[in-house]
Amino acid sequence: MRRSPGEHHSGLDDAIDYLLSSGGKRIRPTVAILTGRMLGVEKERYITLAASIEMLHTATLVHDDLIDGSLLRRGIPTLNARWSSGPTVLTGDYIFARAAYLAAKTGSLPLLEIFARTLMTIVNGEITQLFDQESPDWMQSYLNRIYAKTASLFEVATEGICLLGDFDSRTVQALKQYGCNIGMAFQIVDDVLDFIGEEERVGKPLASDLRQGILTLPALYFLDEHPEGNGLANRLRTRALEEAELEAIIRQIRDSSAIRQALAQAEQMSAIARKQLTIFPECPEREALCELADYIVRRTF
Amino acid sequence: MRRSPGEHHSGLDDAIDYLLSSGGKRIRPTVAILTGRMLGVEKERYITLAASIEMLHTATLVHDDLIDGSLLRRGIPTLNARWSSGPTVLTGDYIFARAAYLAAKTGSLPLLEIFARTLMTIVNGEITQLFDQESPDWMQSYLNRIYAKTASLFEVATEGICLLGDFDSRTVQALKQYGCNIGMAFQIVDDVLDFIGEEERVGKPLASDLRQGILTLPALYFLDEHPEGNGLANRLRTRALEEAELEAIIRQIRDSSAIRQALAQAEQMSAIARKQLTIFPECPEREALCELADYIVRRTF
Repeated sequence: MRRSPGEHHSGLDDAIDYLLSSGGKRIRPTVAILTGRMLGVEKERYITLAASIEMLHTATLVHDDLIDGSLLRRGIPTLNARWSSGPTVLTGDYIFARAAYLAAKTGSLPLLEIFARTLMTIVNGEITQLFDQESPDWMQSYLNRIYAKTASLFEVATEGICLLGDFDSRTVQALKQYGCNIGMAFQIVDDVLDFIGEEERVGKPLASDLRQGILTLPALYFLDEHPEGNGLANRLRTRALEEAELEAIIRQIRDSSAIRQALAQAEQMSAIARKQLTIFPECPEREALCELADYIVRRTF
Repeated sequence: MRRSPGEHHSGLDDAIDYLLSSGGKRIRPTVAILTGRMLGVEKERYITLAASIEMLHTATLVHDDLIDGSLLRRGIPTLNARWSSGPTVLTGDYIFARAAYLAAKTGSLPLLEIFARTLMTIVNGEITQLFDQESPDWMQSYLNRIYAKTASLFEVATEGICLLGDFDSRTVQALKQYGCNIGMAFQIVDDVLDFIGEEERVGKPLASDLRQGILTLPALYFLDEHPEGNGLANRLRTRALEEAELEAIIRQIRDSSAIRQALAQAEQMSAIARKQLTIFPECPEREALCELADYIVRRTF
């Protein structure tokens, strides 16, 4: 990821170093690498795709944090907290280009097509979130949103690897389902940790989505059982609550069964993902993918 | 360009419609189409590449106008004049993705590599302009900047077309030189029109670059012959001049020989471009490319 293709302004390499050194769990590339090894894909190619996916993810985070005005990510200042918006937008663009360059280096045109499609899906999800403050079905909106935001790129990490070789549709479908389901589960757990995680380990303020008027699964389950669910939902979405009222709601969500329900939903998706793996012969990579699906729902940050 | 690949938020299609309906000269896709026809490349492929190039160009304009705070482009309000920065950043990202998708549809991996490289070059040029307020050699900086900003994408319109077929290196080099030189000439003329064009036809305020502290070729030639060239250059770059002083300098540049010198430079590049075409057999497309190189330096908006 750090290997620069050509001479560019040192500020760009520094920014990429800074972003990559902040860590992150690197789950997407891990999934790609394990899938590539399990299927016997050429190492150079699956490593390149893994790097491309993490770069695409990083680029979207740079623009997201700018748009949301987030000042912390993974416990360290975001680029937009350090720079003005111009260089931040451009650095995101540059990282998109690096991601596309790496994707081209995998040597698979079908992969490039789903790569471009996935970027469209991710951006479309964010635009929809920005523009559609009202939605007829909040649960469906939520599922669409987390697919676009997270699961779509996990899908590239598994389906995309299949496009680097010649695999039957049963293999492709099973891995696509695996990627999609762990991606959905991963985002649901993120949304749960946003409520119950330790602020320092999560690396950002608690209930950050709700504070922005975004209803995630714990909030939706909580509202489902609340006597004034609909009215309260609208007030939360339009950020019409006083600070003290909002804090009270956050505490109530943390203490409610909504957290357990959301985790059960994630667990169910993780189980579907693990089940997909049973069609593959036993091997260390299959075992690791199985454990990873398990880890995703048990992690605490 | 308007054909949407899949279901996306209608705001995105509307934004693309708005941006495309504002016109623009469509010179880059015209160059690609003429080159494709002259070389006998399959129509579907050169049209797709032409669309991809115009989309990439459009995406960079969306982010540029946002960063520069430009409110007019081609005489109509920019996206950032109508929307807040969040949707504007995302719309640019979405158009990048559409451009990459179209590039993938050309079916050429080498093309995708230069497509990604060119996006890196363009962004790197902008970052360099933002960060490096001081440069040891302003003329070289200027030439690097207009290559990155404009000529690199014109090059894709010619060299990229060659990558859709199997052409000898003499053909590729000649067309690459043609693309690069008309791109450089095009930008120099743009920079001249920024000083002497009719405000209404250019579609933005006069001397907009100089007002932002950016020295383009007419300003550089003017400063070359100015007794206090270096000191004045620094004051222009740091925007240290009073409004009245700046307006006087702009008038002096307009009335100086710097305009003629800059146009002569563009004319020279156009001639180099036209010369590259002589290796191809006479045909209507060669004639049109030749006329286009001529038009680029004679246009008045």
